[in-house]
Amino acid sequence: MIKIAILGSTGSIGTQTLDVVERNEDLQVVGIAAGSNIVRLEEQIRRFHPRLAAVGDEKKAAELKSRVADTDCRVVGGMEGLLMLAAMPESDILVTAIVGMIGIRPTVEGIRAGKDIALANKETLVTAGHIIMPLAKEYGVRILPVDSEHSAIFQALCGEEPSRIHKLLITASGGPFRGKKREELTNIKVEDALKHPNWAMGQKITIDSATLVNKGLEVMEAKWLFHMDLEQIQVVVQPQSVIHSMVEFVDGGIIAQLGTPDMRLPIQYALYGGRRRFLPGGRLDFAKLGSITFEEPDMETFKGLPLAMEASRRGGSMPTVFNAANEKAVGMFLNRKIGFLDIYAIIEDAMKRHKVIENPDVDEITGIEQETYRWIEGRW
Amino acid sequence: MIKIAILGSTGSIGTQTLDVVERNEDLQVVGIAAGSNIVRLEEQIRRFHPRLAAVGDEKKAAELKSRVADTDCRVVGGMEGLLMLAAMPESDILVTAIVGMIGIRPTVEGIRAGKDIALANKETLVTAGHIIMPLAKEYGVRILPVDSEHSAIFQALCGEEPSRIHKLLITASGGPFRGKKREELTNIKVEDALKHPNWAMGQKITIDSATLVNKGLEVMEAKWLFHMDLEQIQVVVQPQSVIHSMVEFVDGGIIAQLGTPDMRLPIQYALYGGRRRFLPGGRLDFAKLGSITFEEPDMETFKGLPLAMEASRRGGSMPTVFNAANEKAVGMFLNRKIGFLDIYAIIEDAMKRHKVIENPDVDEITGIEQETYRWIEGRW
Repeated sequence: MIKIAILGSTGSIGTQTLDVVERNEDLQVVGIAAGSNIVRLEEQIRRFHPRLAAVGDEKKAAELKSRVADTDCRVVGGMEGLLMLAAMPESDILVTAIVGMIGIRPTVEGIRAGKDIALANKETLVTAGHIIMPLAKEYGVRILPVDSEHSAIFQALCGEEPSRIHKLLITASGGPFRGKKREELTNIKVEDALKHPNWAMGQKITIDSATLVNKGLEVMEAKWLFHMDLEQIQVVVQPQSVIHSMVEFVDGGIIAQLGTPDMRLPIQYALYGGRRRFLPGGRLDFAKLGSITFEEPDMETFKGLPLAMEASRRGGSMPTVFNAANEKAVGMFLNRKIGFLDIYAIIEDAMKRHKVIENPDVDEITGIEQETYRWIEGRW
Repeated sequence: MIKIAILGSTGSIGTQTLDVVERNEDLQVVGIAAGSNIVRLEEQIRRFHPRLAAVGDEKKAAELKSRVADTDCRVVGGMEGLLMLAAMPESDILVTAIVGMIGIRPTVEGIRAGKDIALANKETLVTAGHIIMPLAKEYGVRILPVDSEHSAIFQALCGEEPSRIHKLLITASGGPFRGKKREELTNIKVEDALKHPNWAMGQKITIDSATLVNKGLEVMEAKWLFHMDLEQIQVVVQPQSVIHSMVEFVDGGIIAQLGTPDMRLPIQYALYGGRRRFLPGGRLDFAKLGSITFEEPDMETFKGLPLAMEASRRGGSMPTVFNAANEKAVGMFLNRKIGFLDIYAIIEDAMKRHKVIENPDVDEITGIEQETYRWIEGRW
């Protein structure tokens, strides 16, 4: 039996994780946590019978506590509650599906408690890879990627010797504005950039996909996750999103992972620590698919990728500034306060004025995030 | 140090194997063998200093013996010589790169002597898979594929649990007549079918590629090599020959191996028993490549594939008849005695009149081959 605690159980990755758990008799949820969505948490408690539920919002935690007083589930609140959940003795693996910097501290706590980490929180490695990776090594726990690109690389590396990797090929859809030039992006409307169903978290990722910032963050994560030099990571635009990513080895052989876009596959693969189990769902039909096409990313137009690489190359606290500036800028774009191309300008400005701190600790990272927010607010 | 004996060292796979050996300090050739090309054998003896050289043709063996009398290399001849080479105590691995049924007996001998087999001889598994695979298991030796499609599957399976395989996807270029219909193939000339440089062995394989018989033989081999049911093997036409083959697992995930068409990669991968080493050469450039396309094979027109599957499904001695009839028919087509579509007719006829022997031994297999040849000669 694999016992699972989920940080962010009410979001997209969290609910899909529960779906995977429900399909497998040897998976069990022992803890769930969310920021404030106690309606969904209550449903999940009644359905999955976890021992512990944590709510980021203290007041909501108190409310949930009384709502589920008839169950065996203990309810805890605040950051302290999230940390308790991360380190709960009953779990084997911690799924970090919560969004934002708030995910870092519980991840550190989970690692210290010897939990394997199924990592779906982007900020963790982008801003604190230099803390997380050595810590995981020290405590002998695995960082198992949940993101489809990183899972594809993880799958492609199964059984391979890491010393034989030549480079990673991370695929990118190219976003909704692929093929457009800079001048065509000046007057992009929020509606144009949001082609997908618009729920809160989805909006941010959709814009990040349009700017290629999302791909930049993935490159930064891959660097830490697979112990690569930045020069060993190449982004290949592959609009059909059928090849989820690839690895080229020293003999010229390339191993690719392909599939339909179903996040339950990487989730399940991570929960089982890199082993496969049956999963129902759509299957690729190559004749129907017809073709897979490839392009180089347009780094002139979509500066999210080169800016991310610059931040990663500089290292220290610079990736935190890149991430925080983007977060703020995307929020401003969604609120129609700035244009699409201003997102790049804000990130560039914020990085330019930042004095890098080498090896920032978690407090410093959080501090720099807040400072970056304030600086942008004051200037734009 | 990995010590290698090569059966068929003067052919295409044999010389490329020597090229791989020359590039790796921990690979050493201890034995070489060929049918009759003693000029090339002499060159190879002087360059690679094997302990033993075997020549199928006894007279040529005697000639080679006197030509290399000044070296330490012992020369042996005939089938006995080939068997000696296969079982020579100094080797760790036997590369079976010889063409035709003549490869089966030395392979059996090699397995009995505890050698891993780097398999490049098609006939071995097609006609004697029921003998070879259990024997390899009994003697604890590995059958390592050298063919690019089977190597791709072998690479895709690296580190994976065999019980999690859902199906194998063998890719096919579709041959020079892809897209043509039956009526367009009636008057095909030998010149049309031979689009590649025309050296002896190349001609046979080129025609087999045009008829899809080659793909049929690969399906038959894959069945034995990877312990699959025929229903678990699907052929996907992929004209660019960039994806060398794929495996779909029970979770819907697909692992594919891609690369430039360089046989030295699968050869080297097999020599190292499924481990990677540096190999110089061309690398895939996805942006340059542009696209990979897929089609279903046209089984109505190119009956080589469905006929092979029928032979494989029937089993016993039927695959031997399929292979022998095709060999004979292709020879007749190359000699302009029959038309292109007659190749299928001959295979179909030969299979129809054959009374299957279950579990034929090597003598019976060779007997059935000869008998099939004679029957075709008498009838066509």
